[in-house]
Amino acid sequence: MPDSRFFKRAAAKSVADLAQIAGAALGSGSDSGRMIEDVAPLDKAGPEHVSFLDNPKYRDAFAATKAGACIVSEEMASLAPEGMATIVTKSPYKTYALVAQAFYPDTFPEAYIAAGAHIHPLASIASGCVISEGVVIGAGVEVGEGSWIEPNAVIGANVKIGRDCRIGANTVISHTLMGDHVRVYPGACIGQDGFGFAIDPRGHVKVPQLGRVIIEDSVEIGAGCTIDRGSGPDTVIGQGTWMDNLVQIGHNVKIGRGCVIVSQCGISGSTVLEDFVVLGGQTGIAGHLRIGKGARIAAKSGVLRDVAPGEEQMGYPSMPIKQFFRHIAYLNRATKKG
Amino acid sequence: MPDSRFFKRAAAKSVADLAQIAGAALGSGSDSGRMIEDVAPLDKAGPEHVSFLDNPKYRDAFAATKAGACIVSEEMASLAPEGMATIVTKSPYKTYALVAQAFYPDTFPEAYIAAGAHIHPLASIASGCVISEGVVIGAGVEVGEGSWIEPNAVIGANVKIGRDCRIGANTVISHTLMGDHVRVYPGACIGQDGFGFAIDPRGHVKVPQLGRVIIEDSVEIGAGCTIDRGSGPDTVIGQGTWMDNLVQIGHNVKIGRGCVIVSQCGISGSTVLEDFVVLGGQTGIAGHLRIGKGARIAAKSGVLRDVAPGEEQMGYPSMPIKQFFRHIAYLNRATKKG
Amino acid sequence: MPDSRFFKRAAAKSVADLAQIAGAALGSGSDSGRMIEDVAPLDKAGPEHVSFLDNPKYRDAFAATKAGACIVSEEMASLAPEGMATIVTKSPYKTYALVAQAFYPDTFPEAYIAAGAHIHPLASIASGCVISEGVVIGAGVEVGEGSWIEPNAVIGANVKIGRDCRIGANTVISHTLMGDHVRVYPGACIGQDGFGFAIDPRGHVKVPQLGRVIIEDSVEIGAGCTIDRGSGPDTVIGQGTWMDNLVQIGHNVKIGRGCVIVSQCGISGSTVLEDFVVLGGQTGIAGHLRIGKGARIAAKSGVLRDVAPGEEQMGYPSMPIKQFFRHIAYLNRATKKG
Repeated sequence: MPDSRFFKRAAAKSVADLAQIAGAALGSGSDSGRMIEDVAPLDKAGPEHVSFLDNPKYRDAFAATKAGACIVSEEMASLAPEGMATIVTKSPYKTYALVAQAFYPDTFPEAYIAAGAHIHPLASIASGCVISEGVVIGAGVEVGEGSWIEPNAVIGANVKIGRDCRIGANTVISHTLMGDHVRVYPGACIGQDGFGFAIDPRGHVKVPQLGRVIIEDSVEIGAGCTIDRGSGPDTVIGQGTWMDNLVQIGHNVKIGRGCVIVSQCGISGSTVLEDFVVLGGQTGIAGHLRIGKGARIAAKSGVLRDVAPGEEQMGYPSMPIKQFFRHIAYLNRATKKG
Repeated sequence: MPDSRFFKRAAAKSVADLAQIAGAALGSGSDSGRMIEDVAPLDKAGPEHVSFLDNPKYRDAFAATKAGACIVSEEMASLAPEGMATIVTKSPYKTYALVAQAFYPDTFPEAYIAAGAHIHPLASIASGCVISEGVVIGAGVEVGEGSWIEPNAVIGANVKIGRDCRIGANTVISHTLMGDHVRVYPGACIGQDGFGFAIDPRGHVKVPQLGRVIIEDSVEIGAGCTIDRGSGPDTVIGQGTWMDNLVQIGHNVKIGRGCVIVSQCGISGSTVLEDFVVLGGQTGIAGHLRIGKGARIAAKSGVLRDVAPGEEQMGYPSMPIKQFFRHIAYLNRATKKG
Repeated sequence: MPDSRFFKRAAAKSVADLAQIAGAALGSGSDSGRMIEDVAPLDKAGPEHVSFLDNPKYRDAFAATKAGACIVSEEMASLAPEGMATIVTKSPYKTYALVAQAFYPDTFPEAYIAAGAHIHPLASIASGCVISEGVVIGAGVEVGEGSWIEPNAVIGANVKIGRDCRIGANTVISHTLMGDHVRVYPGACIGQDGFGFAIDPRGHVKVPQLGRVIIEDSVEIGAGCTIDRGSGPDTVIGQGTWMDNLVQIGHNVKIGRGCVIVSQCGISGSTVLEDFVVLGGQTGIAGHLRIGKGARIAAKSGVLRDVAPGEEQMGYPSMPIKQFFRHIAYLNRATKKG
């Protein structure tokens, strides 16, 4: 059902093929040869579609779906409508992601260097790259094999971009060393000076910002994000971290592996996020803090102290989530009319 | 008084003409033939200016103004200084807007296709368009009659832009179908992938984002806004909705007609705003919620539950405004020294 | 130690030269002729480096450093390791900033007008400017001597840019008069219409925005900031004010001299910040307020009333900082489990 003007679907696949692609098992009694043409949500799917059930809340929709096949957990598989093929897995949403990728692979255009791109003669562009119209690439830049630089992106001198990266339109990147499979969405600004200066009534005095931005493999950086380079140490975005739109990362911040940072968060200078930290949208973290591994901070929180690994916090100043809701409940009781 | 380098004023108009343009009535005793040359605020206006009184707080300035004419409500008209012409209306600010538009019409440049624009041969540009320097337009794009694409904007393949739209400089638009009279301010990014993935410690798995962004007629989208396309369903911005700068709209969000979304708000995925909702600045709305028709959420609020039509909320988690201020008043009393 | 691909170091300098450059005194017993090659933090410095001690928290690192020279306050100078040269000053961080600037001067490239820039024939570019690839400069624009416009920036008709300014890549500037030594970071949007309209259920009615943006000398505007032009009055950013990334400035806002506005703040229309105001990150200020000289607002606050000069506020609605923390302490006590 996706709009064919924007999305090109791959060929139909058998249920067995889909299970194999996703590393999942075929449910008992499933017709392994049934051909599936596309993905669709439970309530819109027909016999030619594969759907999925991740949230038990939708079990009724699952029981009623007309989907030809469905990705489902073992516990739910028994509720499958008669005749539906099942693909059984412990993580239906992840399995669905892999199946959807098989129908809609994230392909890059054919290799191509636009006549209207401005590439410095001392830049090095590996084979298989797409360099689009209006792109400006400075001296000494290296772009790895198969990477795609979208229109009007500006890549400053000596920036290194790895293999199979996709750099969005109208991005600006300087002072950055980037790994492979990194994706930067449109309008992001990476590598500009951090906000470092000595306050002085006769005019603030700039402190030269002498670090870089290091972006490890498989990072995703959302549209309009701003990531300042370090002041001496580097700013580091760890492998596999995903960042939503309009996130601000201050200088010298170190972000670990696999973090998830929702839209409009701001992380102040020199703060460390250990691996697998999750920040809800619009959260702010003060500078020079350490947020422990796997900590989860609810949206709109303001973190003023270190957070222990695995802790869940909320509020401003942020506190354990239960404590935050006790505050609210207390105030509701205390101010209840008569 | 506007700087003539930036603003070109139309010819002088009589008070009668102005009343007619705005669909308002001439006040009794007004000299309908008096010529007015420009708009000006009450305290700076002279006999050649038309001003307006909307907020009763400024009634003294109204009584003392030297403006040749003034737009005013019936109740206030009797306070008009001797000899001033009045244009009487129920909505002075709206009438002022129409009068100011008559002096400073929002005209587009002459039709023009810049030699330095990169337009794919398979794109279709209707007559009367301005396509500026550095613009990149992909295959299959349709731009409607009289639209203006400002410099270095990037329009992805198969995007449809209606008539009389103005697309700001350095914007990036993909996977989008846009109506007529839409205005996108500079630097906005529209149509990129939503933030959809299955979290996995071995590397988050991307869920293909297979929807579009639908922008209805007469929408305004502020500078630096980010609007993600849907994941399967579409992201929809309803007719006549106005969005200030740096607003983030997640995938699958549906926004109704005539909403007002102030700067730096974030709306999480799959949330619905019914018609005429107003969000104050820096407000965040969690995902999968429904905000009822005409609801008003104060600035900096965090909405975690559905909001009923017409309700006014504030705080985090958001609550009825009166309740929010009761919480604050209670704490002020409880912590008062001595 | 900075990466020589990105940072070019100036020649070695004697300790006496460094003291003179920064207007500071040489500590007693210091070897004034010792040659210093670079800056480095206390824990990484060797005999060829100059470091600094600003925060007494690092006094142990100071006592143990191997730095050849160190910038330090008089009180701390006596703790200097044997044989180290000292540069003694009341403001070590500012002195360090000046010394670091001497090693890493903020030099602009050689004057250069890119063939791929689009400069209107009626624009005026002074001598010594750098106009980079993809830049679009409208009719009547004036760019002062020695200014640098980075790639793909878009400068609208009749904008005035002073001397020695640096305008970042992919910025968009219109309706603006800018002084000297201004720096605009990448992706900022300046001068677009403010968010002004009369709300109307049949379609909001735009109020023409007839003012400008006035940017005084030595202002810094962070990446992705949005600054709307005035509606009639101007929007003004005062001399020497520094703004971090993703800040939103509404129409008619007046910001005084030397203010510091941290990332993701939003200032609503017609609000005045007097000189030397400091706003922490993600703070919002309602419209039509006056924030007094030297006031300091903590991060994530929401200011709903005028703030007196010198006051320190926090919270939403913002209140004196001590009061804010009394609220939190009270709630923690009141909800403490038995």
